[in-house]
Amino acid sequence: MTNPAGKPAQLPPKATLDGYKERAATWFAGLQERIFAAFEKLEDEASDLPPGSWAPDMPQEIRDRPGRFVRTPWTRTDHTGAPGGGGAMGLLHGRVFEKAGVHVSTVHGEFAPEFRGQIPGTDTHPGFWAAGISLIAHPWHPQVPTVHMNTRFVVTSKPWFGGGADLTPMLDARRSQDDPDARAFHAAMRGACAGHPHADYPRYREWCDEYFFLKHRNEMRGIGGIFYDYVWNDDFDADMAFTRSVGEAFLDIYPAIVRANMGKPWRDEERLEQQVRRGRYVEFNLLYDRGTVFGLKTGGNIASILSSMPPTVRWP
Amino acid sequence: MTNPAGKPAQLPPKATLDGYKERAATWFAGLQERIFAAFEKLEDEASDLPPGSWAPDMPQEIRDRPGRFVRTPWTRTDHTGAPGGGGAMGLLHGRVFEKAGVHVSTVHGEFAPEFRGQIPGTDTHPGFWAAGISLIAHPWHPQVPTVHMNTRFVVTSKPWFGGGADLTPMLDARRSQDDPDARAFHAAMRGACAGHPHADYPRYREWCDEYFFLKHRNEMRGIGGIFYDYVWNDDFDADMAFTRSVGEAFLDIYPAIVRANMGKPWRDEERLEQQVRRGRYVEFNLLYDRGTVFGLKTGGNIASILSSMPPTVRWP
Repeated sequence: MTNPAGKPAQLPPKATLDGYKERAATWFAGLQERIFAAFEKLEDEASDLPPGSWAPDMPQEIRDRPGRFVRTPWTRTDHTGAPGGGGAMGLLHGRVFEKAGVHVSTVHGEFAPEFRGQIPGTDTHPGFWAAGISLIAHPWHPQVPTVHMNTRFVVTSKPWFGGGADLTPMLDARRSQDDPDARAFHAAMRGACAGHPHADYPRYREWCDEYFFLKHRNEMRGIGGIFYDYVWNDDFDADMAFTRSVGEAFLDIYPAIVRANMGKPWRDEERLEQQVRRGRYVEFNLLYDRGTVFGLKTGGNIASILSSMPPTVRWP
Repeated sequence: MTNPAGKPAQLPPKATLDGYKERAATWFAGLQERIFAAFEKLEDEASDLPPGSWAPDMPQEIRDRPGRFVRTPWTRTDHTGAPGGGGAMGLLHGRVFEKAGVHVSTVHGEFAPEFRGQIPGTDTHPGFWAAGISLIAHPWHPQVPTVHMNTRFVVTSKPWFGGGADLTPMLDARRSQDDPDARAFHAAMRGACAGHPHADYPRYREWCDEYFFLKHRNEMRGIGGIFYDYVWNDDFDADMAFTRSVGEAFLDIYPAIVRANMGKPWRDEERLEQQVRRGRYVEFNLLYDRGTVFGLKTGGNIASILSSMPPTVRWP
């Protein structure tokens, strides 16, 4: 684990740390509710979409009413059988979003012996605590990009923040850095970093490009965004403020991008291209994504982890 | 590397070994042609299927004519840039098989330093030679099971055979060991082992159950079959004969299973179940399958390796 300021990453006193955990978890829960509301508003607005913008393969009963998130709480036990926290899944199957998952979790426990040392601060102390929010949205309309956002606060024998947000346009014609969606998304993420002296936007943007990359196809997953991890500057207020800014920036820009695209004319050939592109998303998540692979191997919540899988996919 | 007979696995003289390689590669190429013919015959026979057995989502131009394999040769260079052999992909997009891939390859070269030692016999000698056939079929009809078959002859500083065949019924109602398809498939694989004193059917069947298992879901991929690796009994003729028997058994039983099911009444809810089950197939191949993961990481032929991906998949 490194931290940008080069300071030793040590745990604050327990009462202080408990306060940090509480504030982080509360933020993630509140952000989940606000994202629910923002996505459901888009579902409402779809009533006004032009007839020629609807997916022909959308069942009539889906088209007839705005989608709503279904909340499913879950709990976990760690490898010793002790209670280990849990979370709240939020899944929406709607008429703008073919599938969208917005999940929060607050988990704690001890890593099983075989995983110790793979996570910073766990080589000698196997205990961990983590809270976070994660989101993946798969819109029906091929002109609307898929998005991923995730922020978390992790405490082992060291505390840190991690997260990011990245955009995956589905159509080759829209997968350019000059596309209006790409420009707007990058501007929002740059804005999330601005005003936070520790948030190194050029580094986080580059980290995102490196992380969301399909080596076997030598291609990027999307058009990028930001990705960061192991962020701890011995200043919880400052790092938490940056985490909030990432959430606010997402909430500001993604619904705007959806709104700008969801009424465009429907083209069947774009639907095919979208479903093939989604196959690349599956390949990335199952071959490379640390959270997915690690979660599946450590007995994470399968339903929650694999809710990131796209609803309909093609490998022609 | 172990070999069942406990004999030291050593390479025969070069001229002898060259003869073995030639015989193995010739067998795989001939088997590919025979499987092409058998699958294309099923495509022909589909002309006589009852109207109620066809997929409603099958494009008319697909339904109108029997599918044919398209052959695509490819060559590879190894990590040093030297020629490294190649293969012949065979892909069919038909009206019985939504997608079927039957590929042969004969490759050779040196493993890159980071992969030495991961394969038996390569810790001190990085050279390898391998020939094989691999097949995955994804039928349209949900009552027709998916199948996988693969046999290969590998030579590093040690020679061995590996392979197997396994059946994946798509519908819960058909995923029972008492199902007629499962019984017929197991009987065929048992038969392939019979008459070959070194072929340990109970072990190979158990190995298959262990290998084709989705740990994160605690479920089998299919109903099993056989799986074997590192088979070398210092008797090329005997081991090659077993490899031939596996191919013959496949050629005998799988078309019969397709024929028994492809005319059953079509049910849309079964199509949905099939496409969800195919998602499990994707999860297995990208998370666990050694050939897929190793192939993608060592610069294998992407098109060939990922031709195993199902054509249409759902994660609802």
